[in-house]
Amino acid sequence: MKVSKFGGSSVATFEQLKKVLAIIQSDSDRRFIVVSAPGKRHADDTKLTDLFIQYANDFLTNQPVNDIQDAIITRFKAICESADLQEVLAVIKKQIKDLTLMDKSDKKLVIDTFKANGEDNNARLVAAFLTKHHVPAVYMNPREAGIIVDETPHGAKLKPNAYYQSQPPLTSDKIAVIPGFFGYTESGKLCAFSRGGSDISGSMVAALANADLYENFTDVDAIYCANPKLIPDCPTLTELTFKEMRELSYSGFSVLHDEALIPTFYANIPVVIKNTNNPNSPGTMILPESLNVEKRVVGIAADSGFTNIYLSKYLMNREFGFGHSVLNILTEFDLQYDHMPSGIDDISIILRQNQLTPEIESKLINRFKSALAIDEIKVKHHLSMIALVGEGMKQNIGVAARATKALSDHHVNIELLNQGSSEVSIFFGVNEADENQAVQALYQEFFT
Amino acid sequence: MKVSKFGGSSVATFEQLKKVLAIIQSDSDRRFIVVSAPGKRHADDTKLTDLFIQYANDFLTNQPVNDIQDAIITRFKAICESADLQEVLAVIKKQIKDLTLMDKSDKKLVIDTFKANGEDNNARLVAAFLTKHHVPAVYMNPREAGIIVDETPHGAKLKPNAYYQSQPPLTSDKIAVIPGFFGYTESGKLCAFSRGGSDISGSMVAALANADLYENFTDVDAIYCANPKLIPDCPTLTELTFKEMRELSYSGFSVLHDEALIPTFYANIPVVIKNTNNPNSPGTMILPESLNVEKRVVGIAADSGFTNIYLSKYLMNREFGFGHSVLNILTEFDLQYDHMPSGIDDISIILRQNQLTPEIESKLINRFKSALAIDEIKVKHHLSMIALVGEGMKQNIGVAARATKALSDHHVNIELLNQGSSEVSIFFGVNEADENQAVQALYQEFFT
Repeated sequence: MKVSKFGGSSVATFEQLKKVLAIIQSDSDRRFIVVSAPGKRHADDTKLTDLFIQYANDFLTNQPVNDIQDAIITRFKAICESADLQEVLAVIKKQIKDLTLMDKSDKKLVIDTFKANGEDNNARLVAAFLTKHHVPAVYMNPREAGIIVDETPHGAKLKPNAYYQSQPPLTSDKIAVIPGFFGYTESGKLCAFSRGGSDISGSMVAALANADLYENFTDVDAIYCANPKLIPDCPTLTELTFKEMRELSYSGFSVLHDEALIPTFYANIPVVIKNTNNPNSPGTMILPESLNVEKRVVGIAADSGFTNIYLSKYLMNREFGFGHSVLNILTEFDLQYDHMPSGIDDISIILRQNQLTPEIESKLINRFKSALAIDEIKVKHHLSMIALVGEGMKQNIGVAARATKALSDHHVNIELLNQGSSEVSIFFGVNEADENQAVQALYQEFFT
Repeated sequence: MKVSKFGGSSVATFEQLKKVLAIIQSDSDRRFIVVSAPGKRHADDTKLTDLFIQYANDFLTNQPVNDIQDAIITRFKAICESADLQEVLAVIKKQIKDLTLMDKSDKKLVIDTFKANGEDNNARLVAAFLTKHHVPAVYMNPREAGIIVDETPHGAKLKPNAYYQSQPPLTSDKIAVIPGFFGYTESGKLCAFSRGGSDISGSMVAALANADLYENFTDVDAIYCANPKLIPDCPTLTELTFKEMRELSYSGFSVLHDEALIPTFYANIPVVIKNTNNPNSPGTMILPESLNVEKRVVGIAADSGFTNIYLSKYLMNREFGFGHSVLNILTEFDLQYDHMPSGIDDISIILRQNQLTPEIESKLINRFKSALAIDEIKVKHHLSMIALVGEGMKQNIGVAARATKALSDHHVNIELLNQGSSEVSIFFGVNEADENQAVQALYQEFFT
């Protein structure tokens, strides 16, 4: 049994819905369908979710809402009229207008409920559409599907895996169409995920229904092994492991929401990334383990905007708890670090630059100096982190040698190199100005 | 003005003392002499300090002490009789015997005072010896020299640099001979350094006297660039920087006590390692900065007995404070880590294996699992850390490439690689079984 999630561009128009229908009809294993709100119909279009956010803000600030209601309804109307779904359009219209009956006291709840309405109504629409085309389907509310979450200031958060694993498996006689992007707290309060969170809903449904496969339909054929803008004719990946996907997505590969793979990872369910517009393309499989680990370097990811704060103190390594004190100060400044490699008498803190203003940076440095009696502090901005990713990297004697030689031959200075702490990647820190050169050098060495 | 410290083997016999005399006579800048207790006269000999430790233990446990007193006195007597220093021998004998007049209530003070007596008496002996040979010299007590320390359970600890920098510069009309190995707390209590601590005394005297050079006389001509047991005809180093020395001494280069370079480092005083038995050899200079940084790879150090504890957790890098929690647990177990490199969803803790028993290890792993919900923990013992050391390493594009290729060509798998967090070294973690092979490979690449 398969759970299939369709992203915003896959359900943006009647033409797209017909492709979704054909996909579902072509495989009777597709029993749970998770949908986003209708996305962009063309490059300059506005996503429906953005219209709902404006609607919520206008409502909360007591602005007139007729125009924005109309703009939203028009989008659903276009699809429903083409698809001859007048009945469900009436329901959708009422749902959209009735949002203004909400109590305004809990602003977060208002915004989440408005935002989630795009997915919610779209699930009704898709269920009606499938049924009309002889694929019996029902709308299923996320609460009924078991998408129970914890509320946090940054959006819905998954509960520990054990919670979901203790639930009875989700079943449905007809094909169930479930809106993505939101769940409910245990007390029944609606709570939306962060943007892109429909991917999480799909993955959770796959885990809750104990699916054999989670299909994530989007608008790309597959995941590339590097940035196709830098590498002409860049090859795509037929399969990679969950861990490889994580390393790649950390550094600029934003195919899936970061948290989307958690439920399937822990439930050991493979994920496939497929293209609604080209469903016969095999896509990219994300698997718990790879069958073919020996030779693997699967991808090169890169991300810019890192800062290195270098602290040096004579005989640092004999000070018990020095690293601990460094982390205490970072916590005090509410800063999240990405890496903290150390030498004997020095330590480097690699963190995302966007957390630092010149003022925060200067206060932080003064705090380090005064609290830890640092001999020398150097701050280096504009670093890129390049990850060379692949399971089995650890067993391969020559990978680091080939990678460092390739970078050296292309005159890329390695500011930082971290191998072995991850079993599936080697990290290189380089100057942002060298990032593209570094990716191309590694691509040439490992993929051509 | 120079401060010259002579180690145990340099003052073990009358023959050795004559060499010390010649060294002091040859350069009138040598104004402060710091001495160890007489060391081994031949490979099977016992160090005088070990005899004093036995003496202290016998005294504290109310055993007869005549034999051990005799054994100690015999050593001084042999030197004094050869050197015709009967007068000072009488003083030394009385000092040694009078130790038993001590109150036994503060055991640590008893042990420290007994241990320090070897250095203390030897300073009297050397001062008398120099004076007899027309080099006017006086014994100077460490308290008088300004060796004021803090007492800790593990031995005397230096105060912050500012404390010593605020003292008036140490002066002496005659050549001052100061016993190494111990100092006094501010309240006047004797307190010994950890073993090998005479190196620290010498460095402190250099800083307190504002010397131009600190000479550390020992029994090797110079510091080798790698382990000479592994590398036939291994070259020696004419100079290296304080930071390079630190990196080398961390990993198996035990020429100087770890803390010995702190006072001279902060006082910006060069240090030279010289051989009492071959004083015309230039030795190895340790300098604040190098004049010649471009091409530098100065040494290869290696040390075994490391363990890597690898923790993996899906989406670890999104958990704020994860590294902090790891350190809290290490602190709870009183474990000191050496490095903690991290990937995206994994972190490696490199620590000295001798801190772990199977029981501690098993408790630690259970604690990590229960407190942090780790997906996977792997423990790897018997790792060696190899350091390729040299200032200017960071600017040199090809060093990492050459090093990794050399290791790969010699079939050494790199378990861990850490470059860039230290400006003067690259660290490689390899299996202990590959350590010698790795050192030889790096030596061939960078030194032949």
